[in-house]
Amino acid sequence: MPVSNCPDPPSRRKPGEAVFGTGQSLPAAQARSPLAVSAAGDRAAPSPKMMENAVFMSFTFYSTILILKMYVIAIITGQVRLRKKAFANPEDALRNGGLQYYREDPDVERCRRAHRNDMENIFPFLFLGAIYSLLDPSPAVARIHFFIFCVGRIVHTIAYLLRLKAPTRSVAYSVAQLPCFSMALQILLATTPYW
Amino acid sequence: MPVSNCPDPPSRRKPGEAVFGTGQSLPAAQARSPLAVSAAGDRAAPSPKMMENAVFMSFTFYSTILILKMYVIAIITGQVRLRKKAFANPEDALRNGGLQYYREDPDVERCRRAHRNDMENIFPFLFLGAIYSLLDPSPAVARIHFFIFCVGRIVHTIAYLLRLKAPTRSVAYSVAQLPCFSMALQILLATTPYW
Amino acid sequence: MPVSNCPDPPSRRKPGEAVFGTGQSLPAAQARSPLAVSAAGDRAAPSPKMMENAVFMSFTFYSTILILKMYVIAIITGQVRLRKKAFANPEDALRNGGLQYYREDPDVERCRRAHRNDMENIFPFLFLGAIYSLLDPSPAVARIHFFIFCVGRIVHTIAYLLRLKAPTRSVAYSVAQLPCFSMALQILLATTPYW
Repeated sequence: MPVSNCPDPPSRRKPGEAVFGTGQSLPAAQARSPLAVSAAGDRAAPSPKMMENAVFMSFTFYSTILILKMYVIAIITGQVRLRKKAFANPEDALRNGGLQYYREDPDVERCRRAHRNDMENIFPFLFLGAIYSLLDPSPAVARIHFFIFCVGRIVHTIAYLLRLKAPTRSVAYSVAQLPCFSMALQILLATTPYW
Repeated sequence: MPVSNCPDPPSRRKPGEAVFGTGQSLPAAQARSPLAVSAAGDRAAPSPKMMENAVFMSFTFYSTILILKMYVIAIITGQVRLRKKAFANPEDALRNGGLQYYREDPDVERCRRAHRNDMENIFPFLFLGAIYSLLDPSPAVARIHFFIFCVGRIVHTIAYLLRLKAPTRSVAYSVAQLPCFSMALQILLATTPYW
Repeated sequence: MPVSNCPDPPSRRKPGEAVFGTGQSLPAAQARSPLAVSAAGDRAAPSPKMMENAVFMSFTFYSTILILKMYVIAIITGQVRLRKKAFANPEDALRNGGLQYYREDPDVERCRRAHRNDMENIFPFLFLGAIYSLLDPSPAVARIHFFIFCVGRIVHTIAYLLRLKAPTRSVAYSVAQLPCFSMALQILLATTPYW
């Protein structure tokens, strides 16, 4: 009798069916039920198992929030450039009043520093979090990692753009680094035999 | 009788066998044929299913093109530094004519801005596109997303390096952001239950 | 009789069981043993196959080392800012002695250039290496790719921060780019049919 351990793709499953906090992303019964088996048997191109992994889905959620946050910084940078009339390129200045607006501005530079710091820290998280999710961590612990990083980075951006008093920004940065170091060390522990 | 839903690795499949635009990456018949089954049964280390996913392969193609495009900007930056004799480090200037060439140059800065803008936008795409590919999207719609982003970013680079009249560059940037926002929203819709 | 080709998650396997340099990440016997089968049958949420892929694990190891290297540059940058009293934000300067320390410093800028160059090169590697690992490359050849990149980037950072004589840094950069171009071309070869 044909049996598959490959679970259904997310699109065929109601979100409510996901099992949180148990380390299982599919009800155990469904994985062995004849119905599930025959459904899987008819499916020629199953989605990768990653998307069945509740930890990975949680990681994906927080990562996408942070990427959207970075897009918002880019939009704010553009708005500040227009408001302060400070353009990085002569052709932009010419279109917006004249070459005298081809200049730097401290508010624009502040936005750019916030954006750059995000690149330095959020992009590595996109990697570390994805690999860590595949290491079969405790879902509760994993989500604490992702949540702390996400909140830390959002506070970092707010502290940067609103010039909050030091060391608010540095503390937010340091707190957000803790889950990253934790994930990096766990990945190294798991992968060192393979170097 | 043993049955597996795990398809053959790409290296054992002729590219022509891939099924485009159907949401299936393997012919349904092959997945159930006894031959496929026994071949899979002998395979100890199957390649991940991702590489059986035509949408993911398409995403990979466009992403690699864009990464090569970024490498080209880096090479151009180096060439402009040599031609304009403007080096970021004293040790580079010393090797290329003297410390007076340790200086900034507007053409070099232009290349660096183009490169930085790519980092701000192409790196998030590498994440969003990969996750979106795993969400089982319509292959045709997915490839439109990737294609628009890829063309938008190539036009952005050309407009930046050739100083095309504003707002060519900004329009290319905005057009390329549309598929990114679309993918980000679809990922959030799929993963919000898992936050 | 239930049969699964999905191997056990790494956490249930002793690292010593991994088979190096054979292209197999699981002993073939185990994949077909009744014990393995029943263990897999009880598992509802298997880890993705990626983590069974010795090449992918090796890639993950080197990538994490390089991300930690980038974190070290960030920490060094902060230390140089404090030692040279050169802060990027007025609020930081105010907390560290006064607004006169809101200024640039060549040593700080050097750290920032090293960090930025890492972003330009290590982040694309995180993508190219992951996809390349899924293409079923020879494990020995793959690890040579990862090793050369890793060593090249570490030498690049050392040459940058210690101002080693040119062209040490450029040579390290160029050597590290070789495996990246090789992986990019192999990915393009594999994915061009899917554009």
